[in-house]
Amino acid sequence: MDLDAIQQRLREFATERDWDQYHSPKNLAMALAVEAAELMEIFQWVGAEESRKAIEHPDKVVQVGDEIADICIYAIRLCDIMGVDLDTAIYRKIDQNIEKYPPDAGRHWSF
Amino acid sequence: MDLDAIQQRLREFATERDWDQYHSPKNLAMALAVEAAELMEIFQWVGAEESRKAIEHPDKVVQVGDEIADICIYAIRLCDIMGVDLDTAIYRKIDQNIEKYPPDAGRHWSF
Amino acid sequence: MDLDAIQQRLREFATERDWDQYHSPKNLAMALAVEAAELMEIFQWVGAEESRKAIEHPDKVVQVGDEIADICIYAIRLCDIMGVDLDTAIYRKIDQNIEKYPPDAGRHWSF
Amino acid sequence: MDLDAIQQRLREFATERDWDQYHSPKNLAMALAVEAAELMEIFQWVGAEESRKAIEHPDKVVQVGDEIADICIYAIRLCDIMGVDLDTAIYRKIDQNIEKYPPDAGRHWSF
Repeated sequence: MDLDAIQQRLREFATERDWDQYHSPKNLAMALAVEAAELMEIFQWVGAEESRKAIEHPDKVVQVGDEIADICIYAIRLCDIMGVDLDTAIYRKIDQNIEKYPPDAGRHWSF
Repeated sequence: MDLDAIQQRLREFATERDWDQYHSPKNLAMALAVEAAELMEIFQWVGAEESRKAIEHPDKVVQVGDEIADICIYAIRLCDIMGVDLDTAIYRKIDQNIEKYPPDAGRHWSF
Repeated sequence: MDLDAIQQRLREFATERDWDQYHSPKNLAMALAVEAAELMEIFQWVGAEESRKAIEHPDKVVQVGDEIADICIYAIRLCDIMGVDLDTAIYRKIDQNIEKYPPDAGRHWSF
Repeated sequence: MDLDAIQQRLREFATERDWDQYHSPKNLAMALAVEAAELMEIFQWVGAEESRKAIEHPDKVVQVGDEIADICIYAIRLCDIMGVDLDTAIYRKIDQNIEKYPPDAGRHWSF
């Protein structure tokens, strides 16, 4: 994925519409959270196992892809505005997670 | 950004911890929304203009990067599980947005 | 507000539709978060000061009231299912907040 | 539940801390969504059926009550600021839902 190219297109998109004024970190974080809820809504009332069947329905795959794209567009735009290198941030976080949750700790979730 | 390599690492991370059982689309969407709220929390009580100053604080840039990484990790993992090509989804959505919001429509937000 | 009467109506509503099966704490929490995002969406692109003007627009007041009602309905339903006394929980939390944020601490938010 | 009394206490709480400046509808909606995510996080990785067992754990009941209280406090505060009568809004919404989802329509969720 060419992040520089995507950031460039998103920058042009905002400038051409005079929308840089709306793209503060606060507003972008809010917009991202709204899109995250729209993604979640797709799976709201089905069980976790049932949600795995979504992959068998091409229209659901497109719908999920659309919502994830919305989320990632705001994430990539926010990285541009905040000077965050997303690639570095992702690998740093993966390394932190490996340290935080050692494979042999066998952490499982229940009540 | 090498999406294939990141997806491969996330797949290994889940398998080594026996966490594939938790990574249903429903749960991943929920986890992503929780991380989106953590990103939003950083900017909760400041104004939109004040939020632009976050870039001047290196610790805030790291904190924002960490939260965006959490979000993107779940987004990339969900794409893997749902068979979504993220690159294609992002460009398709950008093209849809260009069509939906023509530059000369000058849409602005107020009450 | 007569919480008992509202809980009774919501219980009947679920039973008449055979929806108790969907009203697990997990699903209700998710549904509540989706409604919270819909409330937030109303104010997404306007500034904090501009959002105060919403009260001058009767249609916005109705829209905000509708979204808050959705949120509170899920909250009240979840209290019923989890055996939470909402009145007690709210006063306990207000008291905790008074202790946590003493009036003379003058905490203010900025970067 | 005495909404007037709660609104009065929340009003005093805000005034004593000089926090009315932060309590715009936009910020309150954002804060509510952050609390909704904290509620959701409790049930993030457990299945829907497993989440029903939370009621057997008194500490979980308290934790859920705390998060619901946070949500309702922001909801009640926002009603005060926006001039929304919460009681009326809830009953109007319940009536709308009865009309929208007739009992005999037997709507169920799956993929």
